[in-house]
Amino acid sequence: MSLIEALKWRYATKNYNTSKKVADAVFQQLTEAVRLAPSSFGLQPYKFLLIEDKAKLEAISAAAYGQPQITSGAHVLVLAVETNIDEHTVASYIDKAAIARKTARKNLEAREQFVNSVIDKLDYEQRIDWAEKQAFLAVGIFVAAAAVAQVDASPMEGFDKSAIDEILDLKSKNLASALLFVIGYRDEENEFAAIPKVRKEKKEIFHII
Amino acid sequence: MSLIEALKWRYATKNYNTSKKVADAVFQQLTEAVRLAPSSFGLQPYKFLLIEDKAKLEAISAAAYGQPQITSGAHVLVLAVETNIDEHTVASYIDKAAIARKTARKNLEAREQFVNSVIDKLDYEQRIDWAEKQAFLAVGIFVAAAAVAQVDASPMEGFDKSAIDEILDLKSKNLASALLFVIGYRDEENEFAAIPKVRKEKKEIFHII
Repeated sequence: MSLIEALKWRYATKNYNTSKKVADAVFQQLTEAVRLAPSSFGLQPYKFLLIEDKAKLEAISAAAYGQPQITSGAHVLVLAVETNIDEHTVASYIDKAAIARKTARKNLEAREQFVNSVIDKLDYEQRIDWAEKQAFLAVGIFVAAAAVAQVDASPMEGFDKSAIDEILDLKSKNLASALLFVIGYRDEENEFAAIPKVRKEKKEIFHII
Repeated sequence: MSLIEALKWRYATKNYNTSKKVADAVFQQLTEAVRLAPSSFGLQPYKFLLIEDKAKLEAISAAAYGQPQITSGAHVLVLAVETNIDEHTVASYIDKAAIARKTARKNLEAREQFVNSVIDKLDYEQRIDWAEKQAFLAVGIFVAAAAVAQVDASPMEGFDKSAIDEILDLKSKNLASALLFVIGYRDEENEFAAIPKVRKEKKEIFHII
């Protein structure tokens, strides 16, 4: 199935098939695609937390106002961004780059200084906003990869962030929740699986100047 | 080519082949994928502006600190977000939904009120941050679609936003620039086309809780 056909097939699944799980081999394909997502300066300042703990899932369901995706038996991920992006984050990236590119670390120090100079100009809130944008780009890759693999996926924004942060003790891990992301297989009987998608026309999104 | 292979193939292209353009049929595939991207409440609060005007391209190059992608002959898009998301935005979506779903508009009014109640709680800056996140998700889809079509794509953040907004007179259109996005075909001779990608390992991004 082409990516376009796959994106037409997908929809904002709310009701999942409670008995059909995503096989590990498929999950590994999706996570590999997300791992390869580009990000600003290559920092990938986010984590996807797959929640399997039942008590935490129930608490997350309450923090997401009981939206049916969470407790429908699908796989629930919390996308969280790093809240402590600083010179250590950059140093860690440069360490990796030196190894991947088989070069001496000092050859990358000019780059390191440049990236640090950009980050230094951002305050705490700006760093989080920036990390969230990188995370949402990765979510776009996740959505595409899931659709191609015929796995349903629901990015979900309606939740109490501070409640989720508390449930998962994210603050102590220098993380903050940014999005819920549910994957699984749709309940084919659900009426919403068949209703037409609502999208802008191309000419409303793309303009030539 | 699988999506994973395509994502491995892609890289942060800086030097494009100056003579090889993206065919219109291919461009239409990419824009169709982006049009299908999901967004919060389905609002798609962004536009991709394809810049063909030479004088504007030169001005954008200066506002992007002379990064080589802009004037390398590739196609330059400015991703801009709507700065006036309000009840008119929602009403326009609900109008579309009523048509797409062949239902009376009044059947969607509870939904309309709910979406408006969420947006009402966001201030001006929060609405822009929110729109930017939706836009970056669409960029993830764009990156995936381009890679699968073997088109190189460079999302670019390093630019003077207010300068770009002025060059394109975005303020008067209730838009604000969020990202530059260049597509085309790599200069195969460029050394960066062959160097290894730097990415975190899966275990650094995905955790089970």
